[in-house]
Amino acid sequence: MIYITRQVKFSAGHRLYNPKFSDEENERIYDKCNNPKGHGHNYTLEVTLCGEPDPEIGYVYDLKKLKNIIYQEIIEKVDHKNLNEDVEFLQGVIPTVENLAIKFWELLEGKFGNAKLYKIKLYETETSFVEYYGGSSNDK
Amino acid sequence: MIYITRQVKFSAGHRLYNPKFSDEENERIYDKCNNPKGHGHNYTLEVTLCGEPDPEIGYVYDLKKLKNIIYQEIIEKVDHKNLNEDVEFLQGVIPTVENLAIKFWELLEGKFGNAKLYKIKLYETETSFVEYYGGSSNDK
Amino acid sequence: MIYITRQVKFSAGHRLYNPKFSDEENERIYDKCNNPKGHGHNYTLEVTLCGEPDPEIGYVYDLKKLKNIIYQEIIEKVDHKNLNEDVEFLQGVIPTVENLAIKFWELLEGKFGNAKLYKIKLYETETSFVEYYGGSSNDK
Amino acid sequence: MIYITRQVKFSAGHRLYNPKFSDEENERIYDKCNNPKGHGHNYTLEVTLCGEPDPEIGYVYDLKKLKNIIYQEIIEKVDHKNLNEDVEFLQGVIPTVENLAIKFWELLEGKFGNAKLYKIKLYETETSFVEYYGGSSNDK
Amino acid sequence: MIYITRQVKFSAGHRLYNPKFSDEENERIYDKCNNPKGHGHNYTLEVTLCGEPDPEIGYVYDLKKLKNIIYQEIIEKVDHKNLNEDVEFLQGVIPTVENLAIKFWELLEGKFGNAKLYKIKLYETETSFVEYYGGSSNDK
Amino acid sequence: MIYITRQVKFSAGHRLYNPKFSDEENERIYDKCNNPKGHGHNYTLEVTLCGEPDPEIGYVYDLKKLKNIIYQEIIEKVDHKNLNEDVEFLQGVIPTVENLAIKFWELLEGKFGNAKLYKIKLYETETSFVEYYGGSSNDK
Repeated sequence: MIYITRQVKFSAGHRLYNPKFSDEENERIYDKCNNPKGHGHNYTLEVTLCGEPDPEIGYVYDLKKLKNIIYQEIIEKVDHKNLNEDVEFLQGVIPTVENLAIKFWELLEGKFGNAKLYKIKLYETETSFVEYYGGSSNDK
Repeated sequence: MIYITRQVKFSAGHRLYNPKFSDEENERIYDKCNNPKGHGHNYTLEVTLCGEPDPEIGYVYDLKKLKNIIYQEIIEKVDHKNLNEDVEFLQGVIPTVENLAIKFWELLEGKFGNAKLYKIKLYETETSFVEYYGGSSNDK
Repeated sequence: MIYITRQVKFSAGHRLYNPKFSDEENERIYDKCNNPKGHGHNYTLEVTLCGEPDPEIGYVYDLKKLKNIIYQEIIEKVDHKNLNEDVEFLQGVIPTVENLAIKFWELLEGKFGNAKLYKIKLYETETSFVEYYGGSSNDK
Repeated sequence: MIYITRQVKFSAGHRLYNPKFSDEENERIYDKCNNPKGHGHNYTLEVTLCGEPDPEIGYVYDLKKLKNIIYQEIIEKVDHKNLNEDVEFLQGVIPTVENLAIKFWELLEGKFGNAKLYKIKLYETETSFVEYYGGSSNDK
Repeated sequence: MIYITRQVKFSAGHRLYNPKFSDEENERIYDKCNNPKGHGHNYTLEVTLCGEPDPEIGYVYDLKKLKNIIYQEIIEKVDHKNLNEDVEFLQGVIPTVENLAIKFWELLEGKFGNAKLYKIKLYETETSFVEYYGGSSNDK
Repeated sequence: MIYITRQVKFSAGHRLYNPKFSDEENERIYDKCNNPKGHGHNYTLEVTLCGEPDPEIGYVYDLKKLKNIIYQEIIEKVDHKNLNEDVEFLQGVIPTVENLAIKFWELLEGKFGNAKLYKIKLYETETSFVEYYGGSSNDK
């Protein structure tokens, strides 16, 4: 079993708040991430697949195809967008880095033939990131 | 003469457009940076001073004081903000990385005693950045 | 289950030696890390928690609170210190990067409410680092 | 259990193709990596060992010895070489990053006394990398 | 005057030798870079332009157009190529990082309207790079 | 004219204080860098030479020779040392990053044949660094 990873980057705006909470609660919970007119980040996304290398070809999965699928399923929908307002698959989702990783997993799972989606790693900044390995049956 | 630099980071949202232009022109000129609901970046800012090290102390300028001034003059005003709408010193300024660098220079110039502001370097992403050395008399 | 990580940096001095060993043994074992008057490093520390995102808030744990706890429990005690002489929780500990990671785990474990401390990753240089997942019952 | 890692770099040339395939198939499968006269990369290799720190010394394994073994077993054989033609242990191997990681594992396994080889991580570029944990009995 | 930079990466193979020299001289001069079957690198190229920001638009030069020109003039010709054999504009040139920078300058100069090509910075590895500011009249 | 640079790293301990000052003054001036038992850093040093590439060889200066000279003149004397106590050329020098850069220049100047030492860039941390271009006649 080999684990292969492709890293891509995108830039997006977001604001953290939950409409169920009062303004005061939103500010207490999300602090400066609750800024009413939003802010933004350069996100770094790493998608990891696992599988056996094809014995004739030597690839677990063609990294160029992996990149193309990540662009088609995710980057074209989120890059240079407002994550609260412009992205269909994020409607009703608070765009924390945790929730983004879960949604990205859902968009990619099952799209890689014999290779299996293993991990989504998403950096919001160079010093803050999350890792997600899919639903509860996949917990490490 | 020694050049000393302190790097800091901030995250902000912005949208590039000029209200004088039509929507079509704005889109043609700024492309995806013109997304109506904005997007954002993790900016990296490097501020360089130059001067002679104090012979008794060995510092050109105390890097901790330099950091504090950058925070007070710039970071507290732009971090986790919308650069088009939340920042007083950017009213009426198209928040391109070029214009941000010029405005940051104006905020910092003349604040460092015997040390002289030499350069503002501002990264919008890891692969795109500008450098500014102040007004025309300072051209390299 | 989501894994969230906050990275912080600190600078410290240390010297590797065990008073039980002779000078010759210390030099043979620790080589240049045994320099009698010490040396130092810029350490990079990554603390990873795991848990389920709060369904209303979307956070596993507030990354700002995580940062504050790391500063209070660790960074304020080790930054710009001599790890052999200035740090109470390191008394009698040989300050190898392995032992630092174990001690940092002990200082942080149990401090994160519903989120669980999952991993300490500590870089001594950009090319040398350790990872620690807690006591034997937590081995991966 | 502690996991310790040493990172090293090397530069090498390679070409991806399988002599069993036609030229057209090789080009379809490997695309620009199939360029007949080859191309090359700066590879980054991370070797991770695991074990208990020696209670007297505080090391899982001496990182300097780990570096020396990686250089002797791998770097001296691949650095500034053509991976298709110059490297004995790669004869008959398609030099994909997956296959290189497997071969590097074979060269290193069992060479570290009480510490156990845990992982090979190999970057072909900053945005593409693989991780290998050894044969099937070691799958994570 | 503002200086703007776009960074791009490419991977290529090369071998350093001068056919005028004997094999022994080539090996003495170029050492392991003279490996007969070549090796390769991930190059990082930074192209810097300078000019005044357009007062209506706020750009010195559209960074997307800059990227497209770099791709068209350079990257498409060198990425995943053998620099000694596959690249027309390098025929007869010893592909040292110095000579590559000079040739890249020649390919780009004069292509940016009112903005002026200011610098080519080319990394062969993360620890070795050159900077070129054009012909002698442009010396810093 | 081409500018070539080699980057190297070293780790060292230091303490900032001037014996002419009182303890209180030293603490006020140098703050946590004045910690009596010292601290330390991973320094990154970049040495830049300039010159014309040799027309037959294509090098401004052999980067391997440059690296060897930096090791011999500087790294072997400062790596894993206490900069206040172990280093002869730093006797009586307050080891600020400014003063280290000046001393490194003095050690290297005039050692590169036809190539000229152009710049010393020294990082104390990833976010703090100085640049030095030699004595006053060389000011940029």
